[in-house]
Amino acid sequence: MSPTISGKEVAKHNSRESCWIIVHGKVYDVTEFLDDHPGGSKIILKYAGKDATQEYDPIHPPDAIETNLPKEKHLGLVDPATVEKVEITITNEEKERQKRIEARPPLSEILNLHDFESIARQVMSEKAWAYYSSAADDEITMRENHAAYHRIWFRPRILRNVTKVDWSTKILGHKTSMPVYITATALGKLGHPDGELNLTRAAAKHGVIQMIPTLASCSFDEIIDGAQPGQVQFLQLYVNKDREITKKIVQHAEERGIKGLFITVDAPQLGRREKDMKMKFEDEDPSVVSETGSKGVDRSQGAARAISSFIDPGLCWDDLSWFKSITKMPLILKGVQCWEDALEAYDQGLAGVVLSNHGGRQIDFSRSGVEVLAEVTKHLGEERGLKFPNEKFQLFVDGGVRRATDVLKAIALGATAVGVGRPFLYAFSSYGVDGVDKALQILHDEFEMNLRLLGAPTLKDVVPSMVDASSLSNHLVAVPDDRLYMTNYETLQTARLKGARSKL
Amino acid sequence: MSPTISGKEVAKHNSRESCWIIVHGKVYDVTEFLDDHPGGSKIILKYAGKDATQEYDPIHPPDAIETNLPKEKHLGLVDPATVEKVEITITNEEKERQKRIEARPPLSEILNLHDFESIARQVMSEKAWAYYSSAADDEITMRENHAAYHRIWFRPRILRNVTKVDWSTKILGHKTSMPVYITATALGKLGHPDGELNLTRAAAKHGVIQMIPTLASCSFDEIIDGAQPGQVQFLQLYVNKDREITKKIVQHAEERGIKGLFITVDAPQLGRREKDMKMKFEDEDPSVVSETGSKGVDRSQGAARAISSFIDPGLCWDDLSWFKSITKMPLILKGVQCWEDALEAYDQGLAGVVLSNHGGRQIDFSRSGVEVLAEVTKHLGEERGLKFPNEKFQLFVDGGVRRATDVLKAIALGATAVGVGRPFLYAFSSYGVDGVDKALQILHDEFEMNLRLLGAPTLKDVVPSMVDASSLSNHLVAVPDDRLYMTNYETLQTARLKGARSKL
Amino acid sequence: MSPTISGKEVAKHNSRESCWIIVHGKVYDVTEFLDDHPGGSKIILKYAGKDATQEYDPIHPPDAIETNLPKEKHLGLVDPATVEKVEITITNEEKERQKRIEARPPLSEILNLHDFESIARQVMSEKAWAYYSSAADDEITMRENHAAYHRIWFRPRILRNVTKVDWSTKILGHKTSMPVYITATALGKLGHPDGELNLTRAAAKHGVIQMIPTLASCSFDEIIDGAQPGQVQFLQLYVNKDREITKKIVQHAEERGIKGLFITVDAPQLGRREKDMKMKFEDEDPSVVSETGSKGVDRSQGAARAISSFIDPGLCWDDLSWFKSITKMPLILKGVQCWEDALEAYDQGLAGVVLSNHGGRQIDFSRSGVEVLAEVTKHLGEERGLKFPNEKFQLFVDGGVRRATDVLKAIALGATAVGVGRPFLYAFSSYGVDGVDKALQILHDEFEMNLRLLGAPTLKDVVPSMVDASSLSNHLVAVPDDRLYMTNYETLQTARLKGARSKL
Amino acid sequence: MSPTISGKEVAKHNSRESCWIIVHGKVYDVTEFLDDHPGGSKIILKYAGKDATQEYDPIHPPDAIETNLPKEKHLGLVDPATVEKVEITITNEEKERQKRIEARPPLSEILNLHDFESIARQVMSEKAWAYYSSAADDEITMRENHAAYHRIWFRPRILRNVTKVDWSTKILGHKTSMPVYITATALGKLGHPDGELNLTRAAAKHGVIQMIPTLASCSFDEIIDGAQPGQVQFLQLYVNKDREITKKIVQHAEERGIKGLFITVDAPQLGRREKDMKMKFEDEDPSVVSETGSKGVDRSQGAARAISSFIDPGLCWDDLSWFKSITKMPLILKGVQCWEDALEAYDQGLAGVVLSNHGGRQIDFSRSGVEVLAEVTKHLGEERGLKFPNEKFQLFVDGGVRRATDVLKAIALGATAVGVGRPFLYAFSSYGVDGVDKALQILHDEFEMNLRLLGAPTLKDVVPSMVDASSLSNHLVAVPDDRLYMTNYETLQTARLKGARSKL
Repeated sequence: MSPTISGKEVAKHNSRESCWIIVHGKVYDVTEFLDDHPGGSKIILKYAGKDATQEYDPIHPPDAIETNLPKEKHLGLVDPATVEKVEITITNEEKERQKRIEARPPLSEILNLHDFESIARQVMSEKAWAYYSSAADDEITMRENHAAYHRIWFRPRILRNVTKVDWSTKILGHKTSMPVYITATALGKLGHPDGELNLTRAAAKHGVIQMIPTLASCSFDEIIDGAQPGQVQFLQLYVNKDREITKKIVQHAEERGIKGLFITVDAPQLGRREKDMKMKFEDEDPSVVSETGSKGVDRSQGAARAISSFIDPGLCWDDLSWFKSITKMPLILKGVQCWEDALEAYDQGLAGVVLSNHGGRQIDFSRSGVEVLAEVTKHLGEERGLKFPNEKFQLFVDGGVRRATDVLKAIALGATAVGVGRPFLYAFSSYGVDGVDKALQILHDEFEMNLRLLGAPTLKDVVPSMVDASSLSNHLVAVPDDRLYMTNYETLQTARLKGARSKL
Repeated sequence: MSPTISGKEVAKHNSRESCWIIVHGKVYDVTEFLDDHPGGSKIILKYAGKDATQEYDPIHPPDAIETNLPKEKHLGLVDPATVEKVEITITNEEKERQKRIEARPPLSEILNLHDFESIARQVMSEKAWAYYSSAADDEITMRENHAAYHRIWFRPRILRNVTKVDWSTKILGHKTSMPVYITATALGKLGHPDGELNLTRAAAKHGVIQMIPTLASCSFDEIIDGAQPGQVQFLQLYVNKDREITKKIVQHAEERGIKGLFITVDAPQLGRREKDMKMKFEDEDPSVVSETGSKGVDRSQGAARAISSFIDPGLCWDDLSWFKSITKMPLILKGVQCWEDALEAYDQGLAGVVLSNHGGRQIDFSRSGVEVLAEVTKHLGEERGLKFPNEKFQLFVDGGVRRATDVLKAIALGATAVGVGRPFLYAFSSYGVDGVDKALQILHDEFEMNLRLLGAPTLKDVVPSMVDASSLSNHLVAVPDDRLYMTNYETLQTARLKGARSKL
Repeated sequence: MSPTISGKEVAKHNSRESCWIIVHGKVYDVTEFLDDHPGGSKIILKYAGKDATQEYDPIHPPDAIETNLPKEKHLGLVDPATVEKVEITITNEEKERQKRIEARPPLSEILNLHDFESIARQVMSEKAWAYYSSAADDEITMRENHAAYHRIWFRPRILRNVTKVDWSTKILGHKTSMPVYITATALGKLGHPDGELNLTRAAAKHGVIQMIPTLASCSFDEIIDGAQPGQVQFLQLYVNKDREITKKIVQHAEERGIKGLFITVDAPQLGRREKDMKMKFEDEDPSVVSETGSKGVDRSQGAARAISSFIDPGLCWDDLSWFKSITKMPLILKGVQCWEDALEAYDQGLAGVVLSNHGGRQIDFSRSGVEVLAEVTKHLGEERGLKFPNEKFQLFVDGGVRRATDVLKAIALGATAVGVGRPFLYAFSSYGVDGVDKALQILHDEFEMNLRLLGAPTLKDVVPSMVDASSLSNHLVAVPDDRLYMTNYETLQTARLKGARSKL
Repeated sequence: MSPTISGKEVAKHNSRESCWIIVHGKVYDVTEFLDDHPGGSKIILKYAGKDATQEYDPIHPPDAIETNLPKEKHLGLVDPATVEKVEITITNEEKERQKRIEARPPLSEILNLHDFESIARQVMSEKAWAYYSSAADDEITMRENHAAYHRIWFRPRILRNVTKVDWSTKILGHKTSMPVYITATALGKLGHPDGELNLTRAAAKHGVIQMIPTLASCSFDEIIDGAQPGQVQFLQLYVNKDREITKKIVQHAEERGIKGLFITVDAPQLGRREKDMKMKFEDEDPSVVSETGSKGVDRSQGAARAISSFIDPGLCWDDLSWFKSITKMPLILKGVQCWEDALEAYDQGLAGVVLSNHGGRQIDFSRSGVEVLAEVTKHLGEERGLKFPNEKFQLFVDGGVRRATDVLKAIALGATAVGVGRPFLYAFSSYGVDGVDKALQILHDEFEMNLRLLGAPTLKDVVPSMVDASSLSNHLVAVPDDRLYMTNYETLQTARLKGARSKL
C-alpha cells in the first residue's frame, strides 16, 4: 500500500532539482518529467512542493498523471491536514473576464448556435478558448467544414400537409428526438467545472444521444452515473498500444450499457494546432526558451506526442476482427475520409462510419464530411447497390454544423444523423447545462420550421432531390487580386443625407 | 351590442395583474395575452389602462387584435371623451431621426433604387427597418436573390432600329406599362402613415399593377377604394385554417374587382428573422427575461407563431379544386421553388406561378427565383412542350431586383413579369408616394435605355440568346483564406505624390 | 452677316429671365435653353451677360452650342474690347489641387499604366475625373473588362531564340510599332488644355495609330493638322440622324487622309453614368432641385439625351450600303458584343469589328471584349472557316487593358490589335504629352520583355496554345458570406516581435 | 601586374566628373559607368574616392564589378594603409531596425515557415526585403503559386500501420532526408552576412540538397568549400552569351563534385519587379530624376538589363547537344511551363525538368508549377507511356510552398521532389543558420505528422488517388462586386455582452 507523506516533506521538493506535486491527495515526483510536460515546465514549477489539483483538473483527463508517469514516481498519499493551501492570485486579465461573465446576455437573447460561440469567446479563459477553437495548420479544413454546407442549396416542395412535422429518428436502433448526436470532444472542464456532465444532463432532457470521449475531463463512470435510466450513450475510443487496456475499457463500457463503439481512425498522432501551441509559450520556463534552432526542446511537438503517446499508430484493418471478438457493441469507424475506406468498412461488416476530419484538427485540406458523404453514397450505391440512409450500414457526418438546415442537407444526401461538437462546448462554456439545453431547443425550433418550409413532414421525406449539391466538390481559390487596379477604382456611393461629407 | 365603458374605468386596469387597453375606440382585456404578445409584454404594459391606437396602428394588420384575442376579452366601446390622452415623449434617438428626415436629399438626386434603401435605412425607425430588411437565418438567400442576377450577362445586338422602344406588356391579360408589378409586402404603415396607399397611388399614375397583401396595414377595402377607376389590382392570399374566412376574403376580393389571386405556398409557418427578433428584446419585460434555458418564454418563437397562427400548414394540392369552386379569378401559386412543383401547377390548370422564396424570409438556402426560372422553362419545355413567356401559363419571379437590367434578364429567360417589393417600401418610407413615383420613373428610364442598348425594340425581342446564363446555377464558396500567407504579403502600391508617406 | 453687339448690351441680359452669354466671340441667347442644359442652369447663370468661353471649352465639343441652339438664338459677334473680364475666383479646393499638381512624382517613377490613373485621380478636377472614370449603372462591366484578362493565363515556351523580338504589326494595312492603337474618347480638354493633341503628338513619336473621336474637344481639323506627315489616323463616328451631316463628316475625313472609319454601334443612346451625374447636382440651380417625384426636371436624363440627341437610334444594317456608297475608307463596326453580329459584319463585307462595350459606359453586364473575342473566333471559324488574326476581316478589342500581357492575351486569341483609351487620358491628364509618351514607352518595354519570356520572337508566334482561356466565360458570384461564422472565427497570427500586443 | 595606388590619390577622384572607388582592395574608375549603374549613381557617388566594399558586398555577386566594367577601368590595387576609413552613419530607420532585431522571438516560438517571413519582413532592410519578396508585374503569379496548392485537397486513408513513417527519398539518385531541396536564389548576403553558406550548413545537418545559384553573393568555391564531405550540391546555371565562360563554369562545377546541372530556361531577360524598382528611386541622383517622358534615363529598365546582360536570350534547344558534349552531369531544365516543352526535354534525353515560373519573378500570369505538373504527367503518360515519379525522367516543381502538405500534394501528383527558396531566405535573414535548421526541422515534423495522417508509411504510398485536384486548373475571378447593394446591406451580428453598443 502507498505510504502517507506529510505536506511538510512534500514542500521541501519545490525546485527544478527536486520537484514533487500533489494531485487529488497523491504525491508525485515529476522532476524528470518537467521537460517533457506538454504544457511546459513553468506551470508545474509554480506548484512545486504544493497541491496542484485545482490547476490540474480542467486540463487533464483524470488519469493523465497516473498513466504518463512511471509507477516508481507515484510516491504515495499525502496527509491532507498537513498540506499548505495554495493561494491563487487573480490577475487583472482574469478580473476582466469575470466582469464579462457577469455581462452575459440572458439566454432568451441567444438566437442561434453562433451566438454561443460569440459569448464563449469572450467569457472563456484564453487557454480554454484556444484549445477548443484551434485546428490543424492553417485551419482551412476547419472552416471548410462549415463552408461546404453553403455550397448545398435547397429545392423545397410546396402544398404538402405539414401541420404535423416529426424530426425524430433512430441511430443504431436507438431513438433520438432529432437527427443530431453530441459528438465526443476532449477536456470538458476547460470550459465549465461540470465538464461533460453538462452534456449528459441536457442530452437526457432532450432525448438525444451523447458520445463519451476517451479524453473526457470527467471520468467515464462519472458520466455514465450522470445519465438518466434508459439514456443512450456511445463511446468514442482511442485505441491503446497496450490492447489489454483497450480491452478493459471496451468491456467495461459494454457492461455499463454503452450502445455503440466509435473507434477513432483519423488520429494515429494528434494534429498540430498552432493557436493552442501559442498559448503554451506563456507558461514556458524562460531558461528553456533561449535555446535555438532544432536543438531547443520542441515543446509543441512534445505536447502532441505526450497526449497521444498511448494511441497506437499501428492500428489497422486487421485489428477489427479482434474488436469483434471482445465486444458485441456495434462498431463504427470515426474519421473516414474517402469512399474507398467506407466501402472497406462495409465489407468488413461494421455498423457504420462517421465521415469526419476530426473537426479540422488533424490533417489540413482533408475534405468536409458532407462532401465525402456525397461521394460515399454514390460509390457504395454503384459498387454494392446500397441506398442511404441505410439501417444496416449507417453514415454519419460531423464538423461545421451550425444550423438545422446544415443537418437537413446531410440527411437529404443520405446521412442517418449528424454529430455536433464545438457548439455544445461553447454553449456550456458560456451558460453551463442551461446553455446546452437552449442550444438543443434552438435546433428543435429550427427543425420544426425548416421541415415545414421544405415540405417534408418527416425525415424520410427529406430526399436527395430536395438539395442541389452540384457545386459541392468545387474547391475554388480566386485568382490573386489586382491591387493596383482595385486601389485606383473609386467606389460608387449611395445617396447621402445633406451635409454628409461628399467623399467617404 | 357592446356596452360603453368609461376611460376612468379602463384606467384602473393598468397593471400586469389586470391590463386593459383601448384600440380604435374599443376596450380589450389583454391580461392573459401579455406573455403571448409577439412584441413582448413591456410595450403593452406601457399602455395599460390607456389608448394604444397610435402605437398599435403601424405594426399590426387592422384586424390583428380582433382575430387574435378571444371574443370574451373584447369588452366593448369606450366613451372617447373620457379617455386620458397618452403623452408621447420623444426620445433623443427619435429626435436624431427627425433631423435625418429633414436632411433627406431632394428626389432629383436619387439615381437608382439602391439610393432609396440607403435613405430609408437612415430615416426609418430601427424597428421598421429591421422588419422590412430582415430575412431568414443567415440571410444567405436574401442576398443570393440579388447576386444571382450578377451571374447572368447580356449578349446585346446592334444595328437594329431602336428609335422607338416599348416595354409595356400584359400580365394575366391586363396591360401594364412595364414588365414589373408591385408585389405584396406586409405592414406598410411601419414605413409611412399612408401605408400601402402610397403604392396604390403611384401604381395608378404609372399604369402598373399592385398586388395587395393579406397582412396590409391598411384594410383591404381602403386599398381598393384608393384605386383609380380601371386600375388593376391582384390579391396575395394567406390561406386560413378556417376555410370559411378564406372563402369570404376571396369572394369579397372578386366582387371588388381583383383580377388575380396569388396564393402564398412558401409560408406554412412564417420564417425566423433574427434581426427582427433582436428588436423585440428592447421591448421586453425584464421580469421575463431572466429565465434561462428552454424554460424561458421563447418570445421570438411566439412572434412567428402568433402572426402566422391563422395560416394553414395543412394546405395542399388537393385544396386547389376548392379554390376553383369558389372563384373565377385566375389562380397563381406564389412561392414555387423547383420545376416539379411548377409542372404540377401547370397540370392542375393554374394560370401561372411566382418563382419566389419570399424575399429570402422563409427557408434559407432556397435558390433565387431567377435560377429556378431557368430550370422551369427547360423542364416544362421538355416535359410539356411549352415555350415561355407563355400566355396560358405565366411565369413570374420576385426577389433581389434593383435594376431594369435585372428584369430584362428574367424576361429573356421566359418570365412574363417580375415582382418588386422592398425597393418600393424603401421608396415610400423615405419619400412617401413621391418616392414610389420616382422609383417607377427610374425604372422607366432604365427600360428605355437598356432596350435600346440591347437592340430590342420590344419585350418580344428580348430572347434567350440575349443572355449568357451558363454560370447561373453555380453556388460557389471559396476555399477559406490563408491568413498567414495573406498577412505576410505586402501589397503593391500605386505611384504616390511627393511627400506622401512611403508606406501606407 | 452677323451684327456686332457691344459687351455692355450683353451684360444687361444677366438673369434667368433673359440670359445671354459669349462663347468664342459670339453672343447666344440661352434663356430658353437654361432648363435643358445637361450641366444644369446654375453654371450658365454664373456667366449670364458675360464671356463663358473659358468655362465652356474643356467640357464641350467645339460645335456643341452651335448645333444644339436654334439658329435664331445665335445673336451675332461681340466687340471684344467692350466685354467685361470675368474674374475667376480660385476655390480652396482648387488651391489644394494645384498643390497636388506640384507634388506629382517625376515621370521616371511611373512604372506602369496604373500609376497614371493614381496620379490623375489626385490632380484632375473632380468633374473631369468623374467624366473619364465613370461607367454605366453599377460599373460591373467596366471592371469586368479588366478582370476578364485575369482569367486568361499564359503557357510560355522556352529555349527559343529571342535575342531579337519584334512587336510591330499592321492594322488595316498600316504599320504600327505595337499591336495597340489609341482609341477614341471624348472631351480631351477636360484633362489637359491641349486635349486630343497630346495623343496625336505622342502617337507620331511612337508610330502608333490614333482614332479621332467625334466628340473631341479639339476640332477634327485641328487634330489632323497636328499630325506628322504620313501619320496614320482613324475616325470614330457617331452617325447623325441627318445623314447629310454624316456624309459631310465622312467625306471630309476621307479627304483629309483618314485611313479607317470606325462606326460606333453600341450607343444608340448614351448610357447613364451615375458618378458623372452626381457631379451635376453641385452645379444645379436650387430653385429647380426642390421639385419632387417624377415631376421634377430630370437633369441627368436630359444630360444623356442632350449629348446624344443627334445620334441616330434608327441606324441599322441596311444603312451600311449607304456608307459604302459615300466612302472608300475601310468600314469597321465599333461595339460588337456577340458572335452573331460579327458574322453579319463579315457577311456584309466590312473590314472588321471592334469587340467592345464602350469601356463599360453603355449597357452594364455586357461581356468583356476579350471574352467575346474567344466566341467570335470559334464561331466564325466554324461557320465561315476563318482563321484569326485575319487580314481581310480584322478583329479588335478594347476595354480594361493595363499591361502588355493583356494585349498579348488578346493577340493569342486572334485579335489584330487592341484599343487603349482611359490609360492615355490619365497619362496626359497628369503629365501632358510627356505622359502619353512615357505610357507608350512602358508598353514597348513590357512588350519586349514579355515576348522574350513567352518565347515568341514576333506576334505571329503568339498563338492560341500560348494561353489557357478555359475559365474565361465563367461569371461567378460567390455565395453571400456567413457573417456570423466569420465574425466568430479568430484569425491565425504570424509570429510577433517581443513586446508586440498579444492580440491584434 | 596591377600597379598599387595610394588611398590619397583615389580620394581625389570623388566627383561625378571623375569617380574612383575601392572594392576588395582594388581601384576602379566608374565615372562613365555612373549613369548605367542599376542601383543609381547616387549610391556610388556616396563612396566616390573611398572604399565601397562594405556597401558593395551584400548586393552584388562577387565578380559583378569585374565583369561589368571594361578592363581598362580596373586601375589596380590600393595600399590599404593609406585608405581613409568610411564612417557609416546609422540612420534612425536603421536604429529602429536594430531594435526590432533585438526583439525577435526565440526560435522555439516559430511554428511554421510563414513565421520566418513575418519576422524577416520586420528585421530585414527595406531594400533586401524588396529584392527577395518582389515579383513580376502585379505579382499575380507569385501569389498564385501558393494559392494553387489550396485547390488541391487530400483523400486520406485510414487503418494503415503508420507506426514508422519515412519521408526520405532520392533525387537524381542521391539520398535526401525529405522530398525537398533548397533551390537557387540570388544575393544571399542581402539577408545575412554569411549569405548562401547558411543554407550549405543547414543542408548538411539535415541531409538535404542545396542548389547553388549562379548569382550567389558568396563565390561558388566558397560554397563548395563550406560543404561537408559527401554533401550533395547542384548548380543552377544562367547561360552566358560567351559559351567559353559557361563551359569553364560547368566543367569547374563538375570537377568540384556538383551532381546535377539545372539550366535556367525561363529567364532570357530578367523580369521587371516593381517593388524592387521603387527601392531604387531613393538612391537616385536628383539631377537625373527631373527628366521626363521616355527621354529620361530608364534606371529600372537598365537594372534588369545590367544584371542579365550576360545571359543569352538566344539559348535554344539546339544548344543542348553542346551541353552534353562538355559535361557528364545530369542536365535538368529549370523553368518549364507547359507539357509540350517537358515532352521535348524528355525526347532530348534530359534527366528531368523543374516546372517553375521563377517564383513569379518572370512573366506574370504564368501558371503555377503544380498546375503544370498535373498537365505534364497526363500528357507524357498519354504520349510516351511514362509513369511518375519516374527515375529516368524526374519532375520537380518549385514556387509557393509553405507546408509539408504542399509538398505531399506535388508528390501525389508525380513530382520527385519540390524546391523551396524564399522561406529559407527568410529563415536565415531572421535567424541565420539556426533559422534554416529550424525551418528544416519544422518540415520534418510536418512530414512525419502528415504521412501518418494520410495513411502513407512512405512517399511511395502517396499516390494520385490521395488528392482531389479537380479544381486545380480553374482560374476564377469573381464578378466585380455590387458596391451599392453591399453598402446598403446591414450585417447580421452575433450576441453581445450587456452594455456593448447596440450597433457596431
